[in-house]
Amino acid sequence: MASAGIGDRVEGLHAVAAALAAGRVQSISVEEQRLKRRPYAALVEAAGAAAVPVNVVADVRSEATTEAPQGVIAHCRALATATLEEAVAATDPAALLVFDHVEDPRNLGAAVRSAVAAGFRAIVVPRRRSAPLGATAFKAAAGTFEDVLVVEVGSIPEALHRLGQIGVWRVGLDADGDRSLFGFDLLAEPVALVVGAEGSGLSRLTAERCDALVTIPHDDAVESLNASVAGALAVFEVARIRGWVV
Amino acid sequence: MASAGIGDRVEGLHAVAAALAAGRVQSISVEEQRLKRRPYAALVEAAGAAAVPVNVVADVRSEATTEAPQGVIAHCRALATATLEEAVAATDPAALLVFDHVEDPRNLGAAVRSAVAAGFRAIVVPRRRSAPLGATAFKAAAGTFEDVLVVEVGSIPEALHRLGQIGVWRVGLDADGDRSLFGFDLLAEPVALVVGAEGSGLSRLTAERCDALVTIPHDDAVESLNASVAGALAVFEVARIRGWVV
Repeated sequence: MASAGIGDRVEGLHAVAAALAAGRVQSISVEEQRLKRRPYAALVEAAGAAAVPVNVVADVRSEATTEAPQGVIAHCRALATATLEEAVAATDPAALLVFDHVEDPRNLGAAVRSAVAAGFRAIVVPRRRSAPLGATAFKAAAGTFEDVLVVEVGSIPEALHRLGQIGVWRVGLDADGDRSLFGFDLLAEPVALVVGAEGSGLSRLTAERCDALVTIPHDDAVESLNASVAGALAVFEVARIRGWVV
Repeated sequence: MASAGIGDRVEGLHAVAAALAAGRVQSISVEEQRLKRRPYAALVEAAGAAAVPVNVVADVRSEATTEAPQGVIAHCRALATATLEEAVAATDPAALLVFDHVEDPRNLGAAVRSAVAAGFRAIVVPRRRSAPLGATAFKAAAGTFEDVLVVEVGSIPEALHRLGQIGVWRVGLDADGDRSLFGFDLLAEPVALVVGAEGSGLSRLTAERCDALVTIPHDDAVESLNASVAGALAVFEVARIRGWVV
């Protein structure tokens, strides 16, 4: 499947090192003053070993997309995208993290980092809105985009329909969900966990395509959980129920 | 106990609304263009009902401390601090969140938000480093500082020593911990959960004063969890084990 340029530009030490290890990096720009520090020296050495050209510059910020590129930027081959079927096969049982919206690239990147930490290996994003899968999302993910299959789909509700047909349970995370995430035994089965945007939650069509809507119970003193926190609690609950983390 | 001016300046809609509800606000500056929006109109109305003066201005950013004050700033009476004994009595069983370092005010504020969501009502911070308990931390906490007792101590290891004397178990969160956080039954007892800085973890003296060092197990594909995520998983594990959230 053709890629829309996901991850063709990566910024920040962890994200660039991971892209380099994945063999995607075509060139690196790094700030001269950073080279005294060991992680940067190691990065440049690894680039040399892989025959990747390194430009040593005074300041990368003028060509950076992120606010804090940590002195290093890489131009890369775009990440290859995957099919839904490949994503389902990536773990056993299947564990997909589906983004109904991807409005804030930092929240998305942070969610990918937590998901990989919990053992997930596949995410699904809407193609129309894949622009946020740029340097900011990759930096927030701290290199973990290299460890997941990324599926771009034209429509999230349609993708959920297809996932249902191939035996994957669709579980939506929603403040109005009617059962608790904690201890939900369906999470032991092949599952697609669907998360929305902070505040607005899941779209109506997406919610309708879910087999269950779950909520994260919390003390009444807070209105809502931070989106990254909610996502992390959800993916780790899947991992706990499966015994992936103990 | 004398306060060092914690929370005497609050920025952002949720944080200001919570401080106002707590009766701490002395005056508010709000941007005129925001007043058309209902949450801001409600805030100004609540201020009027409480006889709190409101200055309507064109732009609050020149007097703001945070990057995105959301058009509203409040000057407040400082938050009253509490004693360790009051903090221990705030919940039953005791649940204190202890910050060994408070280097990043946003991480601290996010941790407070998660802790309150999990049912915690007391935090302990080192006095020498309490400067970060300013507008940035309060904004990240989204109003939840008004729901916790804040204890300032001269030394975290000394505070842990005293907590041990009054029957509180000290549990440190550390990447090198020798047991898993998940399912750790000591968390059902009166407990002080100790968190360090992202990256460096707990200081040696602090770790030595802990009864147990626990780690959050995660997939090897990631080096570490985000600090906010680790904190949230920890406080919610306490809440789960106690049945505070189900």
